[in-house]
Amino acid sequence: MLRIPYDELVRTLVLALRNLGFTPARAQECANLFAETTRDGVYTHGVARFPRFAKLIENGAVRPEASPTMVSGFGALERWDGNYGPGNLNAWHTMGRAIALAHQHGIGCVTIGYTNHWMRAGTYGLQAAESGMIGICFTNTMPNMAPWGGNKSVLGNNPLVIAVPRANGAHFLIDFAMSQFSYGALDGYAARGEQLPVPGGFDKDGNLTSDPKAILESHHPLPIGYWKGSAFAMMLDVVAATLSFGQATHQVSPDPLREAGVSQVFLAINPAALGPVSTIGDEIIASLHTEPNAKVRYPGERLPATRAENMEKGIPVDEDIWEETRKLAGLA
Amino acid sequence: MLRIPYDELVRTLVLALRNLGFTPARAQECANLFAETTRDGVYTHGVARFPRFAKLIENGAVRPEASPTMVSGFGALERWDGNYGPGNLNAWHTMGRAIALAHQHGIGCVTIGYTNHWMRAGTYGLQAAESGMIGICFTNTMPNMAPWGGNKSVLGNNPLVIAVPRANGAHFLIDFAMSQFSYGALDGYAARGEQLPVPGGFDKDGNLTSDPKAILESHHPLPIGYWKGSAFAMMLDVVAATLSFGQATHQVSPDPLREAGVSQVFLAINPAALGPVSTIGDEIIASLHTEPNAKVRYPGERLPATRAENMEKGIPVDEDIWEETRKLAGLA
Repeated sequence: MLRIPYDELVRTLVLALRNLGFTPARAQECANLFAETTRDGVYTHGVARFPRFAKLIENGAVRPEASPTMVSGFGALERWDGNYGPGNLNAWHTMGRAIALAHQHGIGCVTIGYTNHWMRAGTYGLQAAESGMIGICFTNTMPNMAPWGGNKSVLGNNPLVIAVPRANGAHFLIDFAMSQFSYGALDGYAARGEQLPVPGGFDKDGNLTSDPKAILESHHPLPIGYWKGSAFAMMLDVVAATLSFGQATHQVSPDPLREAGVSQVFLAINPAALGPVSTIGDEIIASLHTEPNAKVRYPGERLPATRAENMEKGIPVDEDIWEETRKLAGLA
Repeated sequence: MLRIPYDELVRTLVLALRNLGFTPARAQECANLFAETTRDGVYTHGVARFPRFAKLIENGAVRPEASPTMVSGFGALERWDGNYGPGNLNAWHTMGRAIALAHQHGIGCVTIGYTNHWMRAGTYGLQAAESGMIGICFTNTMPNMAPWGGNKSVLGNNPLVIAVPRANGAHFLIDFAMSQFSYGALDGYAARGEQLPVPGGFDKDGNLTSDPKAILESHHPLPIGYWKGSAFAMMLDVVAATLSFGQATHQVSPDPLREAGVSQVFLAINPAALGPVSTIGDEIIASLHTEPNAKVRYPGERLPATRAENMEKGIPVDEDIWEETRKLAGLA
């Protein structure tokens, strides 16, 4: 694993994005989002995804020049069309609208259809938290998980994000898919030849297993909480597709290089609109640490340290990924 | 199990609630909520809970005469104080406010602090769906689940509800706690001498187990998705307590007969505010049924049939519970 200085990483991504057809301003914004994701330790959804992102642009699934357009709105609720633009730029814009509405109405809800993979889900939660807002967002995905009782992947693992701001900037953040392990995590365990710490899916014969290779082969990961996560994933799809007038999971191509036109929902809630902001979150964190030897963390707790370490030592990037990124940038 | 005609059940509950200090109108509304819960097949949170509800009133934890009062509001966001009133009446009122705000602003978010157990969570999701709204709500609870990595119950299992209306009235509905099994479900398996279908918690030595008795003894149920459900439950507590200015889980008494003053959030979103309402939900249901032999259901699918059967045959009520309820009503 290489360690690339943050600024060099961003500069290289900007050059690559310019070559892929992005305007200078949009190339800068998109490069920041990819680099920040890796800086924050979410290695599966940052620079490691950049070559695949480039392929989605090259094959026309993602349109680098397209921006979202508003379709309809009523008070604190708006619906936008993503026009198949870059998913992270679209999502950043959409959460931005939700935050603006929350300043105006106390809460804002903005949906977007026909958008693309937003890369790191947590980005948009943190975007809200940095504005002092509680952020909630979710997306549907291509079909990659079977519903409880079935064997065919017609559900998405539909990630969900909730972020709550803390005054010191060390925000609460959950960001997870409705499958017990993401495909990226399964790939990682398989590459290291390790078994999963808990059962993570079914093998081809429908038996629950902790073998990541068997799950990658069956394409049948386990939903979190068995029947509960299956129902939860389905509901997120129903809400996202209903409110965005966009595609549902079963309408999205199951080919990762053709996954396009997903539906997303962004909510921002402004605690300051109700009075002086409560610090009960800090008390909840303190309440977790009443057991002397337990390793209990709040969600998001490790982020500031990871970010600081990577900024100091350089951003970890896989050697092959870096080579590909430099080629896309015209530097190799 | 007895089968009580619906009208007789409601009449009996009204008499009991009058004896407990409810005004006629509030006794009627509260009786309806208890009876509808059992009618819909959520047996653990309907009439079966009524004697415990009566005890909470008798010991002062629940104040039968108290109504919620508004503390602050800004646009589509409001904060109310539950004044320790009956949790189901408070929750019904609060979701009602969220629905009214959603008519006005497209979305409404109403929080309530110092309220009490809302009994059946799904009630308020269905309330929104019956008004054509997407309903989302959650509550914190008394401490009853350990965080991932810990052994002490400082988290609640904090139930979450999402409901999406369908034109035919057979609404989508999820309503579940963040523990793999509720304490009510564990009690049921233990009483029948059955093992859980999947591991549901830890025994006193910290080993994962499917033995309901061992989990009831350790008070250490498993969060859905292991670390994921633990983080999710914590976030729901943080959001509910932050926005309501109410108590967090660790501040609520762990004694079920003293559980009082919880915090809740109610969201209603009005799909009709964005244009003609999408029917993508029906297409999602159809997409689930592409496997000939799979038993795949959408969340909420069984409800209409259960409701119809119970209305026809009578509402199932445990003999002891019925005896106690009739005593509270002055009929036995």
